[in-house]
Amino acid sequence: MHVIAEFTVVPIGVGVSLSRYVAACERVLTELGVSHTLHANGTGLEGEWDEVFGAIRRCHEVVHEMGAPRISTTVTIGTRTDKRQSMADKLRSVQEQTG
Amino acid sequence: MHVIAEFTVVPIGVGVSLSRYVAACERVLTELGVSHTLHANGTGLEGEWDEVFGAIRRCHEVVHEMGAPRISTTVTIGTRTDKRQSMADKLRSVQEQTG
Amino acid sequence: MHVIAEFTVVPIGVGVSLSRYVAACERVLTELGVSHTLHANGTGLEGEWDEVFGAIRRCHEVVHEMGAPRISTTVTIGTRTDKRQSMADKLRSVQEQTG
Amino acid sequence: MHVIAEFTVVPIGVGVSLSRYVAACERVLTELGVSHTLHANGTGLEGEWDEVFGAIRRCHEVVHEMGAPRISTTVTIGTRTDKRQSMADKLRSVQEQTG
Repeated sequence: MHVIAEFTVVPIGVGVSLSRYVAACERVLTELGVSHTLHANGTGLEGEWDEVFGAIRRCHEVVHEMGAPRISTTVTIGTRTDKRQSMADKLRSVQEQTG
Repeated sequence: MHVIAEFTVVPIGVGVSLSRYVAACERVLTELGVSHTLHANGTGLEGEWDEVFGAIRRCHEVVHEMGAPRISTTVTIGTRTDKRQSMADKLRSVQEQTG
Repeated sequence: MHVIAEFTVVPIGVGVSLSRYVAACERVLTELGVSHTLHANGTGLEGEWDEVFGAIRRCHEVVHEMGAPRISTTVTIGTRTDKRQSMADKLRSVQEQTG
Repeated sequence: MHVIAEFTVVPIGVGVSLSRYVAACERVLTELGVSHTLHANGTGLEGEWDEVFGAIRRCHEVVHEMGAPRISTTVTIGTRTDKRQSMADKLRSVQEQTG
């Protein structure tokens, strides 16, 4: 099952500066070869279900290894059977209508 | 890795009444033996990472098989390495402080 | 506009124990008279749009006053024009179908 | 209170093609002058609390007026008292660490 997901990792118990943990997750996604796009409030990723959730799991493991005792992550998951759609397709279909 | 998760499934393209799809997901969780609690706006579940995300994946498969061409699901994931905590523990620790 | 919302407040920079902040938000909701239900992973609330988001705003103010320098909150918002539905109605309509 | 938010609107009961509703929300944000950035899975916005939630409310009103009887929206809200940070700052601080 192909998935487009959006996730935001919030490490808890390591102070207020979270960017190095987010950067570590970015490196996890790159190393695993998962297609992803970083933006200000999270990261979009796409691929097969197990690939996507395996990557998010690996991200949790790495952030815990870096010293975060607790993590709260929000994920939104989109799946569809009517057509195959990429994140680039989604963005383009909105942009075409906003002129 | 032990996970406490919260998820809300929104089937798209099948009209406005979504309760039968949510009920189908509840049955999936029960059949798979995943510990879960239904509430008005979603379902809390807890277990090992693969068990929890395997169950959410199975829920997507079932809802697609029921005819929903598109699904948008929101999941919040909590993991911690400092202590083992259940959903019942989380709820109790807040309730003890609200008197 | 009537809203059913679900929210989870994550204070950042105050360690791993978050229950006293969640408890403070519960007291805010009670004091403001907003209809709400606490569960393990968040709080459901319902009311008019401004009432609901005014309450979540007040919760942010209180949690900052308690010492949290940063807060990450996840909210899901449901509105509908086809019928008036309460959280109790939503829960009942799923439960009727899970037997 | 300054807020960085991320929101995704899911109209329910209007079929599977949602881009025209998302495009309408983009126009709402532009017309209201709220600073925002569209990406594949949602829209980031920043401003004062009432400005941000007034804009999301207006988006719900417009999407209902377009014919959607039900809407499910996910919002993540970030506030902080330790420093003023924009979405561009957040993105930059991660990118500086991913090389």
